[in-house]
Amino acid sequence: MSLVIVGSIALDTVSTPEGEVQDTLGGSAIYGSLAASSFCPTHIVGVLGSDYPASGLQLLEEHGINLEGLDFKEGKTFRWSGKYTNWNRAETLNTELNVFADFSPELPESYLCCKCLLLANIHPRLQLQVLNQINSYHHLACDTMNYWISLCKDELEQVIKRVDIVFMNEDELREYTGKKDVFEAAKEILTIGPEWVIIKRGEYGSVAVSSSNLFFAPAYPVTKVKDPTGAGDCFAGAFMAYLANHPIINHQVIREAVRYGTVLAAMNVQDFGVQGIIGKSRAEIEVYKEHLIKWTS
Amino acid sequence: MSLVIVGSIALDTVSTPEGEVQDTLGGSAIYGSLAASSFCPTHIVGVLGSDYPASGLQLLEEHGINLEGLDFKEGKTFRWSGKYTNWNRAETLNTELNVFADFSPELPESYLCCKCLLLANIHPRLQLQVLNQINSYHHLACDTMNYWISLCKDELEQVIKRVDIVFMNEDELREYTGKKDVFEAAKEILTIGPEWVIIKRGEYGSVAVSSSNLFFAPAYPVTKVKDPTGAGDCFAGAFMAYLANHPIINHQVIREAVRYGTVLAAMNVQDFGVQGIIGKSRAEIEVYKEHLIKWTS
Repeated sequence: MSLVIVGSIALDTVSTPEGEVQDTLGGSAIYGSLAASSFCPTHIVGVLGSDYPASGLQLLEEHGINLEGLDFKEGKTFRWSGKYTNWNRAETLNTELNVFADFSPELPESYLCCKCLLLANIHPRLQLQVLNQINSYHHLACDTMNYWISLCKDELEQVIKRVDIVFMNEDELREYTGKKDVFEAAKEILTIGPEWVIIKRGEYGSVAVSSSNLFFAPAYPVTKVKDPTGAGDCFAGAFMAYLANHPIINHQVIREAVRYGTVLAAMNVQDFGVQGIIGKSRAEIEVYKEHLIKWTS
Repeated sequence: MSLVIVGSIALDTVSTPEGEVQDTLGGSAIYGSLAASSFCPTHIVGVLGSDYPASGLQLLEEHGINLEGLDFKEGKTFRWSGKYTNWNRAETLNTELNVFADFSPELPESYLCCKCLLLANIHPRLQLQVLNQINSYHHLACDTMNYWISLCKDELEQVIKRVDIVFMNEDELREYTGKKDVFEAAKEILTIGPEWVIIKRGEYGSVAVSSSNLFFAPAYPVTKVKDPTGAGDCFAGAFMAYLANHPIINHQVIREAVRYGTVLAAMNVQDFGVQGIIGKSRAEIEVYKEHLIKWTS
């Protein structure tokens, strides 16, 4: 099966204790698609401006990503700049929506036969708009962020009602539910509709929670973190791309998906921008995954 | 084999968001011994005052703990009072050393044939004094705390040089080594002498680190934490008691030890003082451990 990823396409300027990059490829759809592309045919949906570098498009093509869902607009691409003083949370220095301000995602007809959809972190209204365009997908997932929880929780709840899998970090779960305990918070999200909540715990890994099961995975230990931007997007992209190959989701499939998500997130943080995840072979990914299994079981 | 645990014996007054207890049984040796007693013959070494409740001694006896190493002194038992505003760190409100001020641990002759020693959290000078009394133990471990790292790092280093296993939390590892990355910090501790460092990560579990291997375990998810006091002591006690039954330590033995430590720590935090770990059957412990295995592998 194929995976469709809808999200932001950005040019990021990032500063971390390990260095800086300017106007580098970023955005939830870009990180997610590149991470996914090692696992299954990947189709991207997003908007970009006339200043988007041709080399960026070439990179996506080299990774076999279907670009038919890209919306090329006159004007500047969405820009985000942020600074990390600790690794767990970026301080946003500046956001320029630019062409992203009027983004209205449309799935090309060729994407409608896909079976797996990741609504990466964008406005829940846009996520809903995409959900209204599909009707026979097997696996639907959404990511989100604290900003949407405080700004438009009702719309986000409409999204959560209609997806099978929700990705949230601990703060987002607490903010959404008002519950301190993240496992209780995840169980509350399950009552809205999804079958699985994936709790993202940053340097401590992740937990997949269903009504009857749990799966814990540590983060893959990385000696030198350079730039954590996009780690959650890579996790979700690889996770959903693994699921795209499995029509039926069971505990074993979720475990493997979590592990592959963990691996791509770890690869990502070891270099700036998307440098850490481009051109990774499946063999390299398997080596990481085998380590994870050895270190946890 | 048998396990000897040397540490503090206290009467604790603890306040948490879930309630309060006054002058309840506490101290690293008490928590550690009670947690260990489900696994192997356990021998305690510590000092207590004439105000120590007879019911406390009876409880230790009921758990089969050898009390020959207890030093009964005229005066008041060591008292600690603390308050938790978050679950990860207690704020110490008061410490009265009392009879603990002049504690000089002496192992009874009957303890010298034991093969496994846990130097629970006490002054490194006392830990050294115990190490000087033994010569044929198979497994030696020490726990510690930030206070000793800042106050007497040289003496602590002498202890670390002579043990096989060191238990430290993330802050302690960073403070001891000056390294931000806890895995790098643990590797530095290994260069001092130990074969394994057990990184305690509170609600995120633990990691066992050797020069050639890693083992990650999440914390056992607990719906209602009431009192985290002693969780690390229970972890270390159960861990070492499991090791006491295994003359040779390999990765598989360490994994099981970490899991049993995790289980006893989780049982402990669910009630105040030692209430969570007393009278636990091996069958109850095994149920928790099987869950842990199911949720991680």
